[in-house]
Amino acid sequence: MTSERECIQRILQYVQSQDSEYLIKGIGDDCAVLEKEGDSCLLLTTDTLVEGVHFDLDWHPPYLLGRKCASVNLSDIAAMGGRPRACLLSVGFPGMVPAWFDDFMSGFTSVLAEYGTLLVGGDTVKSQNDIILSVTVTGEGDRKQIRYRSGAKAGDLIWVSGSLGNAAAGLELCQNGQCRSAKMSTKWQQLINAHLNPEPQVDLGRILSSSGFVHAMMDISDGLATDLAHLCEESGVGAEIQQDLLPVSGLLRNAAAELAADVFDWILKGGEDYQLLFTTGVSDEQELLRFVSEKSGREIICIGRIIEEPGVFLGNDSERREISYQGYDHFVGE
Amino acid sequence: MTSERECIQRILQYVQSQDSEYLIKGIGDDCAVLEKEGDSCLLLTTDTLVEGVHFDLDWHPPYLLGRKCASVNLSDIAAMGGRPRACLLSVGFPGMVPAWFDDFMSGFTSVLAEYGTLLVGGDTVKSQNDIILSVTVTGEGDRKQIRYRSGAKAGDLIWVSGSLGNAAAGLELCQNGQCRSAKMSTKWQQLINAHLNPEPQVDLGRILSSSGFVHAMMDISDGLATDLAHLCEESGVGAEIQQDLLPVSGLLRNAAAELAADVFDWILKGGEDYQLLFTTGVSDEQELLRFVSEKSGREIICIGRIIEEPGVFLGNDSERREISYQGYDHFVGE
Repeated sequence: MTSERECIQRILQYVQSQDSEYLIKGIGDDCAVLEKEGDSCLLLTTDTLVEGVHFDLDWHPPYLLGRKCASVNLSDIAAMGGRPRACLLSVGFPGMVPAWFDDFMSGFTSVLAEYGTLLVGGDTVKSQNDIILSVTVTGEGDRKQIRYRSGAKAGDLIWVSGSLGNAAAGLELCQNGQCRSAKMSTKWQQLINAHLNPEPQVDLGRILSSSGFVHAMMDISDGLATDLAHLCEESGVGAEIQQDLLPVSGLLRNAAAELAADVFDWILKGGEDYQLLFTTGVSDEQELLRFVSEKSGREIICIGRIIEEPGVFLGNDSERREISYQGYDHFVGE
Repeated sequence: MTSERECIQRILQYVQSQDSEYLIKGIGDDCAVLEKEGDSCLLLTTDTLVEGVHFDLDWHPPYLLGRKCASVNLSDIAAMGGRPRACLLSVGFPGMVPAWFDDFMSGFTSVLAEYGTLLVGGDTVKSQNDIILSVTVTGEGDRKQIRYRSGAKAGDLIWVSGSLGNAAAGLELCQNGQCRSAKMSTKWQQLINAHLNPEPQVDLGRILSSSGFVHAMMDISDGLATDLAHLCEESGVGAEIQQDLLPVSGLLRNAAAELAADVFDWILKGGEDYQLLFTTGVSDEQELLRFVSEKSGREIICIGRIIEEPGVFLGNDSERREISYQGYDHFVGE
């Protein structure tokens, strides 16, 4: 099976001759960046979710699916440090159930409203087999503040904006039927919610991009191992993650025990956490922590270092192993 | 089965409270129109094509499918009188065949290059069953020149930019297997090509919008009967089409005879011709014809009049019947 990277490489062959002042950043980052007016840039991103591949109607309530469908796109704007503005929604149904669609739209537009984003258009089509949800979001960003995957430098600290692995654990709990009983779904609520209703880090993304400390940034949609590999490849560097710096909650550990799963597999390969991954200069550590805490009340977590050697490595006391691109591949599926 | 109009009505319930100076035109036209800079506006449009619903791999060569996939989106920019700028492509495959995809991309980017449009991003996903092609195009337009569906006035002349029904005839010929033999596909080439490889009227759209004569404009994607009904509904008027003014080529007549089809069904209900439909003041007729001929060398065709009475009517010597919304419904399918 062809991987998502191979597919994108194939597409890139057809766009190499596209030289234009209008285009600041094309394929290869969380958003495309286009000239708009003075220092203000237009951000563009699109994501398609397909029933049975990206979501399962057995356990994904339509309201939360609507929320997730908007959130995963807003997360790409967040990853650039941008401000979302407008949204297009394409829906394809083999047969539309009005009550289901009302709940979906209600969830979808609730997230847009929370982030000041307008639903301005779209397309409604018939599909043969599966529900197809394709969303495009436009945003704005200041040319000097937009952050790319490509800015990481050897020696940088690597940060994440919150816990990883929760969404992957939540997905396994749902697949395992644990979201069906009220008792179980209460017990695992935080993990299941991370899967069903992830939160785009729009405000934090803008705080980080405006801080002046961040060298490179992206969101974690395909898992740390894959997304950090993308960031390193775009920056021409490598990364070393310290396993003991990765935050592991008691709840995540309990879920791993319950399902006989490896908690570090979830953290490194799971994907869909939609936390931000970013790098900063090592001397800015204390000032960055203070700045983020003051502006957002959030704790960010340093998990390792950017190195010169290509590849993404996981180190602990006794060993160091390569984990590049071991996360979720949207093209191969699960 | 719910219709596309009902589905859009349902979506509109969730966007009614979206009041913003930033949004010039939201859901309900060929493109959304957003403020950009001074008089320059951002146009946004998206279309999703699903295998087995919108295209059939049995007879649609990947190069031409790529071209069509770009063209139908550029046609929405043309319909506003805009200039296309950038494009996002989302592709979903159950399993990707590299040679097929290369041909598709080659066709897709050939149309973008012809109209100065950059491919700047997208998404590649796995789908369960069918190929899914979702495209978003951005464009620019001058606020004073952009034309909407809503500008038609009672008394206006109704025009189309070229022949209708060719694409519908071409589709039936393909379904009938006539595109498989070299002899037949040469005989019907013009019709089959109208289905497989429609041409977006980008240049003509800009000429028309800059002429100052056009009151309302849209493209014909769902058939004259449906698209003119949309234009009338948005404008709060009705329309009367004169059957004897509708252009019918000898080739189209021959194809209808061959397939025992009704040539006026193709013309009125067929859809996918991607010609422009527009209205002008009655006193501007001669000047408009001269202007368009000088600027484009094209002949445009007057097919009827805008009337006060709601509805779209087809008249001939002996009768007058309502044909509103009798075209293709993307949601119900064929």
